[in-house]
Amino acid sequence: MKNVKHAKCVKCGKIYKAVPDLTNCSCGGILDIVYDYGYIKTVLTWETLAARRDYSMWRYRELLPVEETTAAPPLRVGWSPLYPAPRLAETLGIRKLFVKDDGVNPTASLKDRASSMAVAKAREAGAKVIACSSTGNAASSLAGNAAAAGLETYIFIPSRAPKGKVAQLMTFGATVISVQGSYEETFELSKAAIEKWGWYNRNAAINPYLSEGKKTVGLEIMEQLGWEVPDYIAISVGDGCTIAGLWKGLKDLYAIGLIDRLPRLISVQAEGCCPLNRAIASGGDWAPMEENTLADSIAVGVPRNADKALMAVRESNGLAVNVSDQEIMAAQKLLGQTCGVFGEPAGVTGTAGLKKLCEQGVIPADAAVVSVVTGSGLKDVANAIAFCGEPVSIPNSMARLTEAFAARNAGQGKI
Amino acid sequence: MKNVKHAKCVKCGKIYKAVPDLTNCSCGGILDIVYDYGYIKTVLTWETLAARRDYSMWRYRELLPVEETTAAPPLRVGWSPLYPAPRLAETLGIRKLFVKDDGVNPTASLKDRASSMAVAKAREAGAKVIACSSTGNAASSLAGNAAAAGLETYIFIPSRAPKGKVAQLMTFGATVISVQGSYEETFELSKAAIEKWGWYNRNAAINPYLSEGKKTVGLEIMEQLGWEVPDYIAISVGDGCTIAGLWKGLKDLYAIGLIDRLPRLISVQAEGCCPLNRAIASGGDWAPMEENTLADSIAVGVPRNADKALMAVRESNGLAVNVSDQEIMAAQKLLGQTCGVFGEPAGVTGTAGLKKLCEQGVIPADAAVVSVVTGSGLKDVANAIAFCGEPVSIPNSMARLTEAFAARNAGQGKI
Repeated sequence: MKNVKHAKCVKCGKIYKAVPDLTNCSCGGILDIVYDYGYIKTVLTWETLAARRDYSMWRYRELLPVEETTAAPPLRVGWSPLYPAPRLAETLGIRKLFVKDDGVNPTASLKDRASSMAVAKAREAGAKVIACSSTGNAASSLAGNAAAAGLETYIFIPSRAPKGKVAQLMTFGATVISVQGSYEETFELSKAAIEKWGWYNRNAAINPYLSEGKKTVGLEIMEQLGWEVPDYIAISVGDGCTIAGLWKGLKDLYAIGLIDRLPRLISVQAEGCCPLNRAIASGGDWAPMEENTLADSIAVGVPRNADKALMAVRESNGLAVNVSDQEIMAAQKLLGQTCGVFGEPAGVTGTAGLKKLCEQGVIPADAAVVSVVTGSGLKDVANAIAFCGEPVSIPNSMARLTEAFAARNAGQGKI
Repeated sequence: MKNVKHAKCVKCGKIYKAVPDLTNCSCGGILDIVYDYGYIKTVLTWETLAARRDYSMWRYRELLPVEETTAAPPLRVGWSPLYPAPRLAETLGIRKLFVKDDGVNPTASLKDRASSMAVAKAREAGAKVIACSSTGNAASSLAGNAAAAGLETYIFIPSRAPKGKVAQLMTFGATVISVQGSYEETFELSKAAIEKWGWYNRNAAINPYLSEGKKTVGLEIMEQLGWEVPDYIAISVGDGCTIAGLWKGLKDLYAIGLIDRLPRLISVQAEGCCPLNRAIASGGDWAPMEENTLADSIAVGVPRNADKALMAVRESNGLAVNVSDQEIMAAQKLLGQTCGVFGEPAGVTGTAGLKKLCEQGVIPADAAVVSVVTGSGLKDVANAIAFCGEPVSIPNSMARLTEAFAARNAGQGKI
């Protein structure tokens, strides 16, 4: 890899050769991929990108840690839409807002970015089997991306994973192990099994290549904004890998001169499970918490990528905010009604946090903000229905329809 | 509209001016939009298209019935991926197969193409409210696309509509009327209500512009194949609007010389509800049927666009095949395992029909085929889970994991 120098432990600084099956440092720290920005700068410019026709995350190959000969995996991941959201901006009282809808990825979440990278690296490693533990989205995205590439998957999920994600896994033909316990226990069992059977490891807090896939969401946001840097980017946080990846992408672009400043990150967690935000607020270390939120994808009591995530928020002079489940579900509806975007609870948690900070007057009215929606609401319809209510139910009768409208004052008197 | 001549009744041939709120002909027939191909030919070529950066259905503006000043609606609809599917092709015993995954549209179905068009035309008509009846996907796509554009929606669904679609509707803020009856009864109630309150009509069998939106799936397939025409295109059929739209797109391209022949259509319906295929098989007229299939989106006993659909299949020298619910669910799993694509039951019915025809030896082994997946499996996870089974459920214990694998002989002895 001409563009990659090596991997480096974020804890002890130890250097590793960037082989395809890298895991954690011997000290237990997570590795970070170090690039040769001097070289990349000479090949990746605004102009070379503008001329490119690959509208997927693989359009940023020079910033991705793969061999030049490695083919992009089959599913078309990335280049999700970045929507201007003027009506939502007005509701929140800010000047400019964009919504990045990562729910339209092939398996309907941002995790496809990491899984596409996992498939590419597993192929480089000559692996035939990939395994991971996941609260659900990493699992279904791995199962889908691997199935398309003809690779086998072993997947560990906590028994609470919502049905939509389980249906995906089973359909993609993964071997699925539902662990009767927390995500933490699920993770530990997957780790032991991966060690025992030698499968390729797609746990994002162990395999340092995965956040390099996730960072493409940041690369895309900047290119889609015409390299005009927003003031803030709000995103939900669980394990910490996604916000760490986002930050890596932004720093990459800054390092090669494609952007001239960096936005501030807004790290949003659920009140019932916010170990990272608690650490940011206290300025100290993180400690485990219970997993007490309906936003299943970010119900992570023992965040596995705490180091990179905390570093990202702190380096960016970022903000941390926690939201209640009620605030999350209200944000889901608000996004749906003002933007036509239906995100899963964890997917809209970033928007919920942004809303809260706007209401608290923390975000200045002239700010330009991007809110990342990390997964589709179709992954978890039970919660959406519980919050939104059921439709009017009537027989085929105009009289009954007119009555129903009158009773509910539908359309606020518009009929 | 420089590119549109007028609308013409497919039944009696009566000509109408192409105003934005066109409905059916006074004879009850459905209208078809007639283009000025001579003009379009001069502006839309392989080269002009290749230079275009709009990767959505709106890249084909010259073939779409909108004013030049009409903006594309906010959500990014279309340009869904067309995946080469070599492993599925091998399984089916055909030379070349491509899968068009329309489940990655903003609200996760092909219907977004019609709804995007409906929003554009409603704006031209100065309407503030759009209404439709739908088995679910047209409804949720209208609700999402309209919400993004700031328009209000009134939506009629049969009470059987799956939860995923209902959750979308409620989140997008639609006024939803769940009709205790068949799709036929739902349609009739919506028709009466639309007449009474004067809402903009997004019923695809009444508003002739909608299949013009749907036809973009055909335009994209051809451009994505580099204008190399396949032998067959397989697609599921309910109301008939989608296959009619697909055919219109193909004929448009043929008329302006962008393709030099036309593929044969494969019309696939569910055994329990196949009024159109029954008509094709008999060569005669269609008659109503019960709506007896789990593929809810195509459970249409009284197809509203029978004329255009039958004409399309017959003109293309097409094939008609019916599949059982069991065959549909097997196709869902097959697509998931070989392509990493998770389609809803009606979404994979086209693939199920193709598989059946391959097994019957009807499709020659050297054929090149496209199979369109019309919606995401996340819309209806209950059926997927019922068919695929549940994961292995164990506590966090390596001993129990090893036991479970041994019991199930997981990975066929690979562990």
